[in-house]
Amino acid sequence: MSKRALPVTRAENFPEWYQAVVRDADMAEASPVRGCMVIKPWGYGVWELLQRQLDDRIKETGHENCYFPLFIPKSFIAKEAEHVEGFAKEMAVVTHHRLKNVDGKLELDPDAELEEPLIVRPTSETIIGDAFSRWVRSYRDLPLLINQWANVVRWEMRTRLFLRTAEFLWQEGHTAHADEAEAREHTLRMLEVYREFAETVLAMPVIAGEKPENERFPGADNTYSIEAMMQDGKALQAGTSHYLGTHFSKAQDIRYQNREGGESYCHTTSWGVSTRMIGGVIMTHGDDDGLRLPPAIAPRQIVIVPMLRDKPEDAEVLAYCEALQKELSKRVALGAPVRAFVDKKATKSADKRWNWVRRGAPVILEIGPRDAAGGQVTFMRRDHLRDGDKIISTASSREAFIASAAALLEEIQASLFAEAKLRLDEAITPIASFADLEAFFGAAAEDDEAGVAFKGWARVAWSKPTGEALETVATRLKALKLTIRNAPMAQPASVGACIFTGAPGVEEVLIARAY
Amino acid sequence: MSKRALPVTRAENFPEWYQAVVRDADMAEASPVRGCMVIKPWGYGVWELLQRQLDDRIKETGHENCYFPLFIPKSFIAKEAEHVEGFAKEMAVVTHHRLKNVDGKLELDPDAELEEPLIVRPTSETIIGDAFSRWVRSYRDLPLLINQWANVVRWEMRTRLFLRTAEFLWQEGHTAHADEAEAREHTLRMLEVYREFAETVLAMPVIAGEKPENERFPGADNTYSIEAMMQDGKALQAGTSHYLGTHFSKAQDIRYQNREGGESYCHTTSWGVSTRMIGGVIMTHGDDDGLRLPPAIAPRQIVIVPMLRDKPEDAEVLAYCEALQKELSKRVALGAPVRAFVDKKATKSADKRWNWVRRGAPVILEIGPRDAAGGQVTFMRRDHLRDGDKIISTASSREAFIASAAALLEEIQASLFAEAKLRLDEAITPIASFADLEAFFGAAAEDDEAGVAFKGWARVAWSKPTGEALETVATRLKALKLTIRNAPMAQPASVGACIFTGAPGVEEVLIARAY
Repeated sequence: MSKRALPVTRAENFPEWYQAVVRDADMAEASPVRGCMVIKPWGYGVWELLQRQLDDRIKETGHENCYFPLFIPKSFIAKEAEHVEGFAKEMAVVTHHRLKNVDGKLELDPDAELEEPLIVRPTSETIIGDAFSRWVRSYRDLPLLINQWANVVRWEMRTRLFLRTAEFLWQEGHTAHADEAEAREHTLRMLEVYREFAETVLAMPVIAGEKPENERFPGADNTYSIEAMMQDGKALQAGTSHYLGTHFSKAQDIRYQNREGGESYCHTTSWGVSTRMIGGVIMTHGDDDGLRLPPAIAPRQIVIVPMLRDKPEDAEVLAYCEALQKELSKRVALGAPVRAFVDKKATKSADKRWNWVRRGAPVILEIGPRDAAGGQVTFMRRDHLRDGDKIISTASSREAFIASAAALLEEIQASLFAEAKLRLDEAITPIASFADLEAFFGAAAEDDEAGVAFKGWARVAWSKPTGEALETVATRLKALKLTIRNAPMAQPASVGACIFTGAPGVEEVLIARAY
Repeated sequence: MSKRALPVTRAENFPEWYQAVVRDADMAEASPVRGCMVIKPWGYGVWELLQRQLDDRIKETGHENCYFPLFIPKSFIAKEAEHVEGFAKEMAVVTHHRLKNVDGKLELDPDAELEEPLIVRPTSETIIGDAFSRWVRSYRDLPLLINQWANVVRWEMRTRLFLRTAEFLWQEGHTAHADEAEAREHTLRMLEVYREFAETVLAMPVIAGEKPENERFPGADNTYSIEAMMQDGKALQAGTSHYLGTHFSKAQDIRYQNREGGESYCHTTSWGVSTRMIGGVIMTHGDDDGLRLPPAIAPRQIVIVPMLRDKPEDAEVLAYCEALQKELSKRVALGAPVRAFVDKKATKSADKRWNWVRRGAPVILEIGPRDAAGGQVTFMRRDHLRDGDKIISTASSREAFIASAAALLEEIQASLFAEAKLRLDEAITPIASFADLEAFFGAAAEDDEAGVAFKGWARVAWSKPTGEALETVATRLKALKLTIRNAPMAQPASVGACIFTGAPGVEEVLIARAY
């Protein structure tokens, strides 16, 4: 049994631990609709903060937000051949626009069958490309830089809250450029926006790099990703950026009049991150007491729990807490006013404290009559909650705490990142042969679903095979439940021999188990 | 022909004028998906500002945002009898979760038919009620105050951009309370939030009141609305708030343990506003030169157009404009930093000016070499653009303009509201008999779709009939293309005789043509 706030520890069973955090931190729950989740206030609050800070970055890089239809005509999906293959298998299809009441039972109205079925968007390249084909006339209209925040649906058989759900929330950027060089540069610029955002706002270190050919987005020339390391050593693809070449512009006729007066096809890009990132935050920062939220995305950064005892001094304690909350809210941390909150709920203060520990509020204060009388505060840092089994509680004068609150939040943000960054850096192991790779990952392959020993990732040289040769590599890796995550942007000056073929290596790639 | 920036005037043909504004202000366009719109950057920018300011108000009144599934199982919709009747006729129904490739053609995969069809949410009472039934256990969990920003779909045969589209964006608030009095109070509190928001942020005067029984939300005990007057005299229902009694809590088993230890059903409310509000803004403030945006929701409040001539002094003009933009952005107007923008696009400055006039930017500056050299600015106020046919251009020193910019924006916000408020107040005509009502509205009934003479609304006494008697009233009004909009919250001390029955009146109601 766990001596911690959760019923199961990471070491005992990581997948169960994950479910326990999501549940006990009140982030989300399964819904009666297969594969769809309900995002609860605490989880949605995290999404709102994440969204606003990423949106700022997307706007700073020149994009404007739009909104495109939820539905995509079947014929649109069919236009880009690879796109069809990639998405046709997992789409929700609307076939009727009415139900009718037949003897008190609601049934499909056969008179209301659509002439052409509509697909609930799994991604919007085709419907946005259609608009682009109308909006782009001349080189003066380029680059066209658009973003959309939306829900999308991909039918999934095995779902897990935040990580893989039939419906999820995301942003999808779509851009059109006059030439390849500019489009490629933009693809990488947005990858860098994601990297900086993940590391700065989510305190989640990632490796940015290019996905191998077999892991590309359907219809892309190149797909790049940021990959984060979860505490079970698995990789989580946390964001992708695609250079789409002229595939979609040819399929959808996105042409422009160039400077020379001729006609050219645009080069397009797309890139997205989703509510999946929240799963990444949980598995990067959570501990056996629950979630630990980086202050930049904590809906409540400093939670003040008044220790009320149904006695006359309660009023004084409450007033003290509220004055403290007011003072703290005037401070600015991480570029925004401090989000301080007094939990006045009529439940035991110990229950409230543990509730906020599990939810991962960065700083939790417990204020009793003695604190109020003495102008003191007693606080816990969620990033460093315990010394052994013992909870670390720090006393401070009210004034000193207020004066240092912003710095404290910024320190917690930095310390969560540093902790995860150290783990990531230490858990990437250079491996020089396929046999070593098998030995490294082999033992854990059998009990993949329970609490496997932490392995981290392998970094290996390869000759970047394509086509069938790549399929062979993928199959060999699949037997070990492994995939190539990406080829990091930062590459060494010289690369060893390919561990798959023995041929001269052309780059290094990361290999891991993954979500 | 119009002497204005639009090809058609309001007087010539109001519906065509509306379409022209939406198109020429670059707000939205029809999509290839029947009834669904593409909201373009300028239109979406308005929505974002509207959304953020309403969201602040929803949070200030104690609500938390969540996200619930897009899909609703058919059986959920069937649970509340009136709800079914109200919505069954216009819903998108998902029946399959896969397409397959048959001889190169994408077709429905018969093996992927859903056991139970899923409805794309037309509104979320049933799916949120299901969550509430799990979340509410005891009186301590109440009130439960939730809001969701989402897309919804209601199949519509006749669509009009923003006003009536198959898919639209909205917020829907859903709350559960221990007793009727509190739930009723909350219903009216949110109605008042909508009224204040519409008038303060959208500068759109509205009348808040209760809808008659035959216009209630399917499943509600009482429905309240805010009604705005468009410039053709028609009413636009711009927001609704519903007291749902225990209809949904009984249908979905939302019970709680009360203070006495017994079990009670919750009393629930719901309330929403949508992208329709943007249509209301257009038809409230637009003129024959295009849109006029209240500064509080203008994505760009002050647009600076440099008059460039491909000459050496261009650089100086541009630098002057950029320095000006920087200074203006430091100012705060209407509670947010001033949104100033330099339009550097490589097109003629006259084209740029007219573009911003049509889009309704509140203040437009044109800066030439002489302005730059002399430390001057020349500006136009969009709310008061012309004197007769002549454009009003005002010169000012740079310093004076910067110093008064925030006040200018606030003045424009106030003047747009005052203009619309005066029109609303003057265009509500007390009418004492049905014959007078017929005479008042009669003439316009025939050419409803073109530019009808402005009639405004009638305010009449009625005896508030119910059931069949109410149906008779509704039918008589329908013959005149009229509906009862609402019974305003502000009622006189004594009410005249009912214009429909001659019986003693119990309240006054507003009657109008409507969108």
